[in-house]
Amino acid sequence: MRNFNFQNPTRILFGRGQIEAIAEQIPTEARILLVAGGGSIRENGVLDQVRAALEGRTVHEFWGVEPNPDIAALTPALDIVRAESIDFILAVGGGSVIDSAKLIAAAARTEAEPWAILAKGARVTGALPLGVVLTLPATGSESNGAAAISNRETGQKLVFVSQLCFPRFAVLDPETTFSLPLHQVSNGIADAFVHVLEQYLTYPAGGLLSDRLAEALLITLKEQGPLALREPTNYEVRANLMWAASLSLNGLIGQGVPQDWTTHHIGHELTALFGLDHARSLAVVLPAVLEARRQQKAEKLLQFGARVFGISGTSDAEAIDATIAQTVAFFESLGIPTRLSAHGINEDAIPRIVAKLKFNRRLRMGERLDITPEEAGKILALAL
Amino acid sequence: MRNFNFQNPTRILFGRGQIEAIAEQIPTEARILLVAGGGSIRENGVLDQVRAALEGRTVHEFWGVEPNPDIAALTPALDIVRAESIDFILAVGGGSVIDSAKLIAAAARTEAEPWAILAKGARVTGALPLGVVLTLPATGSESNGAAAISNRETGQKLVFVSQLCFPRFAVLDPETTFSLPLHQVSNGIADAFVHVLEQYLTYPAGGLLSDRLAEALLITLKEQGPLALREPTNYEVRANLMWAASLSLNGLIGQGVPQDWTTHHIGHELTALFGLDHARSLAVVLPAVLEARRQQKAEKLLQFGARVFGISGTSDAEAIDATIAQTVAFFESLGIPTRLSAHGINEDAIPRIVAKLKFNRRLRMGERLDITPEEAGKILALAL
Repeated sequence: MRNFNFQNPTRILFGRGQIEAIAEQIPTEARILLVAGGGSIRENGVLDQVRAALEGRTVHEFWGVEPNPDIAALTPALDIVRAESIDFILAVGGGSVIDSAKLIAAAARTEAEPWAILAKGARVTGALPLGVVLTLPATGSESNGAAAISNRETGQKLVFVSQLCFPRFAVLDPETTFSLPLHQVSNGIADAFVHVLEQYLTYPAGGLLSDRLAEALLITLKEQGPLALREPTNYEVRANLMWAASLSLNGLIGQGVPQDWTTHHIGHELTALFGLDHARSLAVVLPAVLEARRQQKAEKLLQFGARVFGISGTSDAEAIDATIAQTVAFFESLGIPTRLSAHGINEDAIPRIVAKLKFNRRLRMGERLDITPEEAGKILALAL
Repeated sequence: MRNFNFQNPTRILFGRGQIEAIAEQIPTEARILLVAGGGSIRENGVLDQVRAALEGRTVHEFWGVEPNPDIAALTPALDIVRAESIDFILAVGGGSVIDSAKLIAAAARTEAEPWAILAKGARVTGALPLGVVLTLPATGSESNGAAAISNRETGQKLVFVSQLCFPRFAVLDPETTFSLPLHQVSNGIADAFVHVLEQYLTYPAGGLLSDRLAEALLITLKEQGPLALREPTNYEVRANLMWAASLSLNGLIGQGVPQDWTTHHIGHELTALFGLDHARSLAVVLPAVLEARRQQKAEKLLQFGARVFGISGTSDAEAIDATIAQTVAFFESLGIPTRLSAHGINEDAIPRIVAKLKFNRRLRMGERLDITPEEAGKILALAL
C-alpha cells in the first residue's frame, strides 16, 4: 500500500429537496455567478428551486456551457466575474458545467492565462469559492478538484487538478435526474464504471481495502445501472447511482494504489477529434486496453471477474476473456457501443490520434508509465 | 435511502515516515499543546519523530491521558491552554488521547462547563484547531467529530459530537502500530468491526451502496485481523487495518441509512461500572443484541451472513444462528471473550446498568428507538 495524502473537503447535501439548503451554504453577501448549460434545468424545476433558495441574493447568470466545454467560450464568464465583482461561483448542471465553473473560479484568481493552466501545467494559485447543484451523475466533478476543458482551436481536451477547486458543497438530489434523457443516464453509469476501473485495474499493490471499496462501487453500478434505464423514476436506484458516481471519483478509492488513466487519455483524443460523448469514448477504448494489457493486468482482471461478475472455474486465460466479454456486455446492455466502427471511425483515425498523443509531451500512460503513443495506436486497432 | 449532509474535512497523511509532514500542517507560529497518554510513544520512536518535526516550535506537553479518560483529569490541560495561550492541539496516541484532545479543544473555546458538553448537550460553539498522530487504529476518532469522555465521580461515560472537532489532519503511519501489545491490536479490530455493524445491522433502507461499503470494511477486518496478530510487523496487514478502522467511523458508511448504537450505549455502562476495555464491552454486548433483535434485524443479518461470512443454503433461522455464531467466533479468534462471566460479571450487574441507562434521559436506543432500558437488561441477561 502506497503512502497517500488525502483530503476531500466537499460537503455533500444529499436527497430530496436539498436544493433549498444552498441558501445556508452561500454567504448572504456573496455576489454569485450561476453557471449553467442549456435549458434542461429550466424545464425540470431545478432552476426554479435554485432561484427560490437564492431569493434576494445578488445572482448573475452565465448560460450556454456545452458538452466538452471550449476554453474560448468561457471568456465571457470571466468578463462577468470581473465586471460584477463576483465572489462565488454556483454550478448548476453536470460535469461540463462544473468543470467550466472550476476553470472560471481558478482563472479569476490565478495570474496565468486560463489555457496555460491546462496546456502548460501553470499552477492554480487561487480560486473563487464554488458550489454545485448536480443534475447529471457521471463525472464525480462535484466532489473533486479536477476539470476537463477542451480547446476547439487546437483540437485538444485536457485536464487540470487543484485542491483549491474542490467545491465547498454539492447538492445531490436524485429527483433532479428523473427527467434526464436515457442516453445521458447510461453515459453517466459507464463513465463512473470506467472511473473506478482506472483506479483498480492495474496490479496488486497491497491496497486490499481500496480494492474492496472499488468492487462495492462496481457491483452497485452493474446492478443498479440497467434498472435506472428501465425505471427512470425509481428513487432508490437513482439515489444509489448518484452517490456511486460521486464516490467513484472523489479520491477515496484511488488512495494507496497505482492508477492507469490510459483509457481516459485516449478517449479524450477521440472526443476532441470526433466529438464522441466522453463516456462513449471510454466504452470503446477500455476493452481494447484490457485486451492489450491482459498480461500486465492479469491478477487484477481475474479479481475483477471473480468478485464483480462471479466468474470462476475456468483457466486464467478463459477467465480474463470472460471478464472482458462481461465488461463489453455491460456497456452494450446500457446501449453504449464498444467499437469505433459503431461511431463511423476507421483505421485512418489511428495515426492522427497517435500524433496528438505524441504532441502532449507531459503525458505518461499506464500504471507503470510504459504505454507509448505507438502502443495506444495498437490499442485503437483492437477497438476498430 | 435517507437524506444526508456529510462533510469530512480531515486530511489523512498515510504511510511510512508521514509524521514529519506535521511540520507543514501546523502553522509555524502556533503555540502547540501536545496531548499524550503513557510512555509508549517514548519507547517506539513516535515522540522522537514528532519532536524532530516540530523543532524550533513552541510546544507544551500534557501527559497521562488514561483509557476512558476522566473529565476531571483534563482540567490541568485546560489550565495550560489558558496560561500558555495555546492555539493548536496535537494529539499523539489512540482514541482516548484524541477524544481528550477534542474535549480540551472544545472546552477552550466554549463557554459551557466542560462536563455540560457531554451530560447536558451544551453546544460546542468553538474549538481550537486539532491535529492527530495516530498510534492505535481502533476508534476512528482521528477522522470524526466525536469524543467519548468518562466521569469517575458520577460513573458515567458519555459522547459528544461536533463538526468543529474534526481534526485538521491525521497522520496514520502503520509502522507506529508494530510495537502495540496484541490485546490492544485485537481490541482495535473488534472496535472497528462493531462500529461498522452499528451502522449496518438495522433494516434495509435502500442504502445499497452504503451496505456494500460496510461489507468491504467487514471483510477486510475479518480477513486481516487474525493476520495482524500472527504477523505484527506485516506492513500491508497493519496498513489495511489502520485505514479500515479509520473509514469504519469517519461518517462515510453511515450516510443515508439507519443506525443502532445500542451495543455502544450498553457497553459504555459496562466500562463505566466495571472498567472493561471499550472493545471488550462491545464484544460481550453485540452478540446478545443480535440474538434479542434477530427478528427486527433479520434481513440485514441474513445479508451480513451471506456476504461477509459466506453463509448460504440453510433456513433463515439457521442462517441467523450461524451468522451470530460466526460473529462470536471472530471475536474469540482475536482472543476477546464474548460473555460477561469471562469478566467476572454476574446477574447482579444487570439492575445497576438498567438504572444507569434510565438515568440518561436523552438516550434512545435501537434503529427504531424502541429499545428500553428494561430490554437492555434482557439483552444483558443473554450475555451472562
